[in-house]
Amino acid sequence: MTTINRNYRKLQGSYLFSNIAGKVAAFSQKHPEAEIIRLGIGDVTQPLAPAILKALHRAVDEMGDAATFHGYAPDLGYDFLRNAIAREDYEARGCQISPEEIFISDGAKSDCGNIQEIFGTDNRVAVCDPVYPVYVDTNVMAGRTGEFDRERGNYRGIIYMPCREEEGFVPQLPQETPDLIYLCFPNNPTGAAITRERLQEWVDYANRTGAVILYDAAYEAYISEPKLPHSIYECEGARECAIEFRSFSKNAGFTGVRLGFTVVPKSLKRDGAQLWDLWARRHGTRFNGAPYLVQRAGEAVYTPEGKSQLAGQIAYYMENARIIREGLAGAGFTVYGGVNAPYIWLKTPEGMKSWEFFDYLLEKARVVGTPGEGFGACGEGYFRLTAFGDRENTRRAVERICRL
Amino acid sequence: MTTINRNYRKLQGSYLFSNIAGKVAAFSQKHPEAEIIRLGIGDVTQPLAPAILKALHRAVDEMGDAATFHGYAPDLGYDFLRNAIAREDYEARGCQISPEEIFISDGAKSDCGNIQEIFGTDNRVAVCDPVYPVYVDTNVMAGRTGEFDRERGNYRGIIYMPCREEEGFVPQLPQETPDLIYLCFPNNPTGAAITRERLQEWVDYANRTGAVILYDAAYEAYISEPKLPHSIYECEGARECAIEFRSFSKNAGFTGVRLGFTVVPKSLKRDGAQLWDLWARRHGTRFNGAPYLVQRAGEAVYTPEGKSQLAGQIAYYMENARIIREGLAGAGFTVYGGVNAPYIWLKTPEGMKSWEFFDYLLEKARVVGTPGEGFGACGEGYFRLTAFGDRENTRRAVERICRL
Repeated sequence: MTTINRNYRKLQGSYLFSNIAGKVAAFSQKHPEAEIIRLGIGDVTQPLAPAILKALHRAVDEMGDAATFHGYAPDLGYDFLRNAIAREDYEARGCQISPEEIFISDGAKSDCGNIQEIFGTDNRVAVCDPVYPVYVDTNVMAGRTGEFDRERGNYRGIIYMPCREEEGFVPQLPQETPDLIYLCFPNNPTGAAITRERLQEWVDYANRTGAVILYDAAYEAYISEPKLPHSIYECEGARECAIEFRSFSKNAGFTGVRLGFTVVPKSLKRDGAQLWDLWARRHGTRFNGAPYLVQRAGEAVYTPEGKSQLAGQIAYYMENARIIREGLAGAGFTVYGGVNAPYIWLKTPEGMKSWEFFDYLLEKARVVGTPGEGFGACGEGYFRLTAFGDRENTRRAVERICRL
Repeated sequence: MTTINRNYRKLQGSYLFSNIAGKVAAFSQKHPEAEIIRLGIGDVTQPLAPAILKALHRAVDEMGDAATFHGYAPDLGYDFLRNAIAREDYEARGCQISPEEIFISDGAKSDCGNIQEIFGTDNRVAVCDPVYPVYVDTNVMAGRTGEFDRERGNYRGIIYMPCREEEGFVPQLPQETPDLIYLCFPNNPTGAAITRERLQEWVDYANRTGAVILYDAAYEAYISEPKLPHSIYECEGARECAIEFRSFSKNAGFTGVRLGFTVVPKSLKRDGAQLWDLWARRHGTRFNGAPYLVQRAGEAVYTPEGKSQLAGQIAYYMENARIIREGLAGAGFTVYGGVNAPYIWLKTPEGMKSWEFFDYLLEKARVVGTPGEGFGACGEGYFRLTAFGDRENTRRAVERICRL
């Protein structure tokens, strides 16, 4: 008798952003005239930078000539891209990461979701609360959790680390000792950043307890304060306890282009195995590489033109963040984030529930955001807005919200 | 204490094609002057067709303009591509598959590897022997098998279905009843095809026993005999028991472009669940879509120009297949495949072991093929050559082998 993976039955509703898309589609159908502004899902709106377009066109031309055609990519990615990443993202920041420790993929969402497969199902998982749902849902699917506890609003068996307003939304070291610790800084959804000193405490903790840190640095390009760490490998000892995920989605506008990478240091060992070996085996068996075109586009991100154009793009989005943050603060909202991250995390007014505020904002202001509760129980009472809209829409959204 | 997924320890050596790549690299280093011809990994060599290049350039231009920029793709793929597939690959062959039942992905390897996740780990898996290693290795990693049995040369707990020369390399219905049955026709590696009548027997068997067929039709475009089925949905009752995988790698030269799709009919139910729901959830949680550019390239495959250009490309490769088949047969080899598939499956001469023949061919003819044993115990004594080389190299490879 064929059985399904019954862990899927534990999952709540649908994937958060699919859920929001459904609600917005239903509203649009009912109000076809409504001009909806979407500051919900963290999707970018600015076109690809000229240096990237040029690289893409050139790569397409190469694919049209047998002499320069590219078939299957090397298992772990093209050297031209892995070398550029090692040099620009790590060596330039004083981190010792070699090109072979960099695994090119189709994006950080896939990597964050896939990484748990190389670990046993008996590991205890710790996540921040609120949290990017992919970390939790993929562990639910893999059977590392119990059932959903309706009363507490989260899954049994997971160690939730509350990120509280009064602590700058950075979690405390957990009471129970986890085996796998997901951290994301700059944080999605709260927009909080972590200092090098605080991150070092986590690295020391992991090395002390034997836990592995799964560090999502997808938003590092938005860090504006000079002393904050862009990579966990800026901390001493991180090569012995941390895996890092990076994305091109937010720093280069690749949400629809799909490119990311994961760093697994060769010195990271657990349970008698080198994690690099396991991830390489998973990569080689389950995946056939990111498209050649896309890897060339990724390479262009690190050229002088690419870097300068993308700095402009990030400045554009961060100006949006400033407009939202200052606009809403001026209207009396309590707002966080938006300084080292493209997310603004606001307290819902008058103790409204976050899905209630979602409906209210959609209905009255025709603005889509993301309810904090969708990121976990501790997200209740908060709401995420993204700075990835275009300027005009961002201004209008803020005006509409302030007029409510 | 962090544990690894110990099922990985059961895996034998490295992934087959990584293994071959390693051997070839070592040989090249030792003999830098050697002109090696690669007919091993099934990688294409012809450039992308003009209709596809045009679509790619146009899509790149769209990504450069905020008005036509595309961010995150719809979870399950763009309608323009799903509609084209439903119309051209299914409706045109009399199969009832709706666009919503088609899930766009980054390739059939990913899908074939990921599909097992939606099933329980207690399912019994049946595979052909020889077999594309991804079906087996992904189930080993997930814990659906026992240890590797060195004596038998395969994994305990898997139902291997021998594909024998005297039976045209089509397996018999298994003695033990499996829950999940992987079938691939036209077959990789043997190049064998299956008739509609024989495939119908499998569909009837699955519906009788409750098993699910995981049907890999990545090579359907190479079918030259008019009566053979291109899709399992040409069989009656397949909507109730089969999932189908398709690839753009071989019919459109997308090995380095990355695009594929999986069909999960909404009428396919097991264990109280609609498999469509589970796969949609997996897709939405673990994946962020194939690149917009690439989905537009896929759409171009179905245009009149695209179809005519790709028919030419397939004819080119199939002429290679004829050259290999007839050349080697003329030199006294026993050869199979190459009529409805781009693979030639030959018996190693004088009872040589297949890895022995691999080394011999690399050493003496500087031709790379794939040892049959790499595909399973029943592949021992056979060797796979692919028709995906360019004409000149294919001719030279055949000459070199015939001269031995």
